[in-house]
Amino acid sequence: MNGFSRLNLAIDVMGGDYAPYEIIKGAIEGCRIYDADLTLAGDKTLIKDCSEKNNFVLDGIKIINSSDTVFMDDSPSGVLKYKKKSPVYLAAEYASKIDNSAFLSAGNTGAAMACALFNMKRIQGVFRPAIAIVIPLGSRKFVLIDGGANTEVKPVYLQQFAIMGKVYCREILKVKDPRIGLLNVGSEEKKGNEITRESFKLLKESKLNFVGNVEGRDIFEGAADVVVCDGFTGNILLKSIEGMAGFFFGEIKKLFLSNFITKVSSLILKKYFKSMKKQFDYEEYGGALLLGVNGIAIISHGSSKAKAIKNAVRVARDSLNNDLINKISSEING
Amino acid sequence: MNGFSRLNLAIDVMGGDYAPYEIIKGAIEGCRIYDADLTLAGDKTLIKDCSEKNNFVLDGIKIINSSDTVFMDDSPSGVLKYKKKSPVYLAAEYASKIDNSAFLSAGNTGAAMACALFNMKRIQGVFRPAIAIVIPLGSRKFVLIDGGANTEVKPVYLQQFAIMGKVYCREILKVKDPRIGLLNVGSEEKKGNEITRESFKLLKESKLNFVGNVEGRDIFEGAADVVVCDGFTGNILLKSIEGMAGFFFGEIKKLFLSNFITKVSSLILKKYFKSMKKQFDYEEYGGALLLGVNGIAIISHGSSKAKAIKNAVRVARDSLNNDLINKISSEING
Repeated sequence: MNGFSRLNLAIDVMGGDYAPYEIIKGAIEGCRIYDADLTLAGDKTLIKDCSEKNNFVLDGIKIINSSDTVFMDDSPSGVLKYKKKSPVYLAAEYASKIDNSAFLSAGNTGAAMACALFNMKRIQGVFRPAIAIVIPLGSRKFVLIDGGANTEVKPVYLQQFAIMGKVYCREILKVKDPRIGLLNVGSEEKKGNEITRESFKLLKESKLNFVGNVEGRDIFEGAADVVVCDGFTGNILLKSIEGMAGFFFGEIKKLFLSNFITKVSSLILKKYFKSMKKQFDYEEYGGALLLGVNGIAIISHGSSKAKAIKNAVRVARDSLNNDLINKISSEING
Repeated sequence: MNGFSRLNLAIDVMGGDYAPYEIIKGAIEGCRIYDADLTLAGDKTLIKDCSEKNNFVLDGIKIINSSDTVFMDDSPSGVLKYKKKSPVYLAAEYASKIDNSAFLSAGNTGAAMACALFNMKRIQGVFRPAIAIVIPLGSRKFVLIDGGANTEVKPVYLQQFAIMGKVYCREILKVKDPRIGLLNVGSEEKKGNEITRESFKLLKESKLNFVGNVEGRDIFEGAADVVVCDGFTGNILLKSIEGMAGFFFGEIKKLFLSNFITKVSSLILKKYFKSMKKQFDYEEYGGALLLGVNGIAIISHGSSKAKAIKNAVRVARDSLNNDLINKISSEING
């Protein structure tokens, strides 16, 4: 015994490009490594078939059978209204009812957020939950908040995002006094739009370790540990980073394949590039946390494989062990 | 004679990290290659000294002597009010008064935009000028508009940005019927914020070749030839692309320097990586165009060297030869 509570992970096994196989695989592996109980929400027959075929041992694992299916173009409100028997809803609902639980989905992001918020509710005092995601850049990683939950914001929301991001960065990434940067188009206080100008003032007056505005360029140079922005900008940034990394590694691949000499060189350099690529690996953190809901809610990337899910279990366990939700609550209300 | 008018370039030689040397060098070279007249605005003594030291031939080149200096933290309105004898103001003023001219500055962006707009005025019917910039990604390049002129926008502004970006893409990049994408957080019409939703409607109803919403990921996969967004998002995206490219190539360099084997490989691969790096070379297009002002105004990157300035002269010449300003005017008012 380590004195910590045992995590119970409730997972939507039907969401994600590689569901259910990779999701179940990652969940079982993660819960074994990180010593957690597991609840799978999804089509029971499919779960059993998949497990049998792949020798997944389901002993001690709870299964919640779903009868609704959520599609990628389902609206969040539609899922809440008409699909309460869907895996994503059932997993969130279950997680909201039992202690020491976490909810995870790699499916329709809007639906996952809605189900988490609807079932778990907000932490008292929180205006809007926000998506916090670790952008992996080797040693220069940072937490981006909001990654897409709120396309419209107010300065007080951004101030809370900063607080929640700080707690996450401190408790999970173990950065002692996280430097908070406000994503903006210039470093001067007066730069940006009305919302950033007002947010700058709030952050400057707060007790946060606020390092001021950070620009698109600065964040890749380690200017801040937590980068705060609205969910519109954050989502575009997030996906651009992903798109650009994909483009880069695609170009390198093309380069290596271009002739005999480059092909030979690529064999020599392969392992180095592999470790470089790993620095951009979003799977390392398994997903984004929806901070501000009264429970641990993880939204994983649609293309998550078992490794991402396994790592998401680690993040969920760390969140529980470090009492993340209560710490956010006390910092928001303190 | 090619039947085209001869360009007269008026350039602020004091703006930019490598001013005046690289600016003068690039301007002289560009005007020689692209057959243009040249007007240099800046400290006359400094221009003459720099030219003498570097064997720049100033014959036939007009010099406008400045007596004010613009700094990077000068506010645009301050420059307009108190620094009318600054190189950036004088160059814009001169360009606004003579035919077939273009204005160029690599200095304080806000000041350059303000001087261009104040002197050249808006094209009739244009609500707000916007920065159009080519994002070079090899064969997948696209025009981003607005790159930072307007941190607050209305849907009708975005509609005009799309029109101006289209004309630029068609006339300068020679894309026949440019595909217009609206930068957004999802592909569905209802995604995003109030402004993007309203803009989507306007663009859909227009005669533009509108391909719908494009996400941060899509733009690196060639989803659109013109990517339309507000200047806040655009500027953050622009600088992020730059920051990420810098980070990426920095990591490759580190990788190559890590041991003997990688050092040897790097010698073999050097030229391939050089050509890959060239695909991301913003200097290829020499700068951004401020579209919507009644004249050719180019805002070059602060770190521009002679090559960028030389290429900017080409873009200015192409803009003139293709009657860019009148075509924008007729499409905006047509």
